[in-house]
Amino acid sequence: MARISAASDKDGDLVKLGGSIRARRTALGFSQEALADAAGVDRAHMGKIERGERNVTFLNIARIAAAVGWKPSQLLDDAGL
Amino acid sequence: MARISAASDKDGDLVKLGGSIRARRTALGFSQEALADAAGVDRAHMGKIERGERNVTFLNIARIAAAVGWKPSQLLDDAGL
Repeated sequence: MARISAASDKDGDLVKLGGSIRARRTALGFSQEALADAAGVDRAHMGKIERGERNVTFLNIARIAAAVGWKPSQLLDDAGL
Repeated sequence: MARISAASDKDGDLVKLGGSIRARRTALGFSQEALADAAGVDRAHMGKIERGERNVTFLNIARIAAAVGWKPSQLLDDAGL
């Protein structure tokens, strides 16, 4: 997947989304590796998603949300998106 | 972007999401081309998104939602996701 420039994420939405994923994960006591494995997402990719460095796809949003017990819309709403 | 197989979208979530985009677009009286242009998404890609044939990225979800006057979370919620 293409790397994300600041220009293409000018509102910092990917950083907000990644921050919500990280906050929910830590609230549940999961390591980043455990969440990646539970969601079926590559571990290195998960780190980049949490830092807002990748334009995460819908299916990965859905997998991550399910792994933390949320609907995809809840995850976005939590991020203020 | 990789094509989506039925197996990778086993719950049909991309079809639900695309259906909500199409329903909102038609409720607003937009053509598919007008929505694609407003969102800054390639016209052919927009058709595939509406049919659930592409794993749409977060930034495109955000652009499409903004073009129809919704937050990204509202679009997903409307799709039951």
